[in-house]
Amino acid sequence: MRTNFGAKALLYPMPVLIIGTYDADGNPDAMNAAWGGIADDTQINICLSPTHKTVANLKATGAFTVSVATANYVAECDYFGIESGNKVSDKIARAGMHVTKSTLVNAPIIDELPFCLECKVISYDDKTCRLLGEIVNVNADESIVVNGKIDVQKLAPITFDSSNHAYIKLGDKVDNAFKDGSKFKN
Amino acid sequence: MRTNFGAKALLYPMPVLIIGTYDADGNPDAMNAAWGGIADDTQINICLSPTHKTVANLKATGAFTVSVATANYVAECDYFGIESGNKVSDKIARAGMHVTKSTLVNAPIIDELPFCLECKVISYDDKTCRLLGEIVNVNADESIVVNGKIDVQKLAPITFDSSNHAYIKLGDKVDNAFKDGSKFKN
Repeated sequence: MRTNFGAKALLYPMPVLIIGTYDADGNPDAMNAAWGGIADDTQINICLSPTHKTVANLKATGAFTVSVATANYVAECDYFGIESGNKVSDKIARAGMHVTKSTLVNAPIIDELPFCLECKVISYDDKTCRLLGEIVNVNADESIVVNGKIDVQKLAPITFDSSNHAYIKLGDKVDNAFKDGSKFKN
Repeated sequence: MRTNFGAKALLYPMPVLIIGTYDADGNPDAMNAAWGGIADDTQINICLSPTHKTVANLKATGAFTVSVATANYVAECDYFGIESGNKVSDKIARAGMHVTKSTLVNAPIIDELPFCLECKVISYDDKTCRLLGEIVNVNADESIVVNGKIDVQKLAPITFDSSNHAYIKLGDKVDNAFKDGSKFKN
């Protein structure tokens, strides 16, 4: 038996995207978004209501960063979603976090979050709330890089469970005994 | 110190979306996609190359389903990504899975995967590979519904680690002792 929930924005996993921007005066802000994902080889797609300070900022600068929220900073990352940048102009500092300006785009990299996409705005549509960004560079702190690759366990990203308004850690790798598909090929 | 990876489609977590479609003759197919996410209240956005059988199918029917891949069917869900529906016309049956036709859209619900979005095609663009779908209904098997909500532990969704080409389970809920943001408000 299946239960119907109607037309809803439910998906598992949903990411916890921390979007970093500067305003026109170079003041950094961060917000938390769950509705988004990779849109192409080098593009990311995120749904952002036009009233966000972040949207005013990225319209002014043409740039943003996307950091992945991590388990050890869940309170800080949740705060970036609860508090509005239109009301509090120093959310990042209040959360005890720090930024370094990207050398590639006009947007702040949050020092404490070890995985970050540096992006240029391709388009933003007020009507559909759709932000499309060009991923100019992916950077990662050396603390989460092993043999030249991201180590997911060290990164410890969190996901958003909108059904229960909770954050969930990633767990273990799933063993796939048939990764060549041979089980099903004959 | 940060390591630069260049312009890449890396994000954590990435979902494992199993897209179900019928061809013009009502033959069901399934594929595996990681590049996508919620696009709006009731919309999903997925990047799909136009050569996929799935794309020909959803152009013909105007509909598709999105099931979430689960840990206990990782081999089957991986197979849906390895094998092409253009070569093998009975991938779902070969994987030992079964379908029930949605009563809302012309697309198959995969019985063994307990969480499913039923979607109508809003648009598909061959050039950008962008599929935009209207989520008409979310349905879930009763085995994963507790007190009227999805139980993420029972669903056991998997995520895709493109950096290591691995599938990863979700883990535990993260305790957020400051979920009202009070830690940072003064």
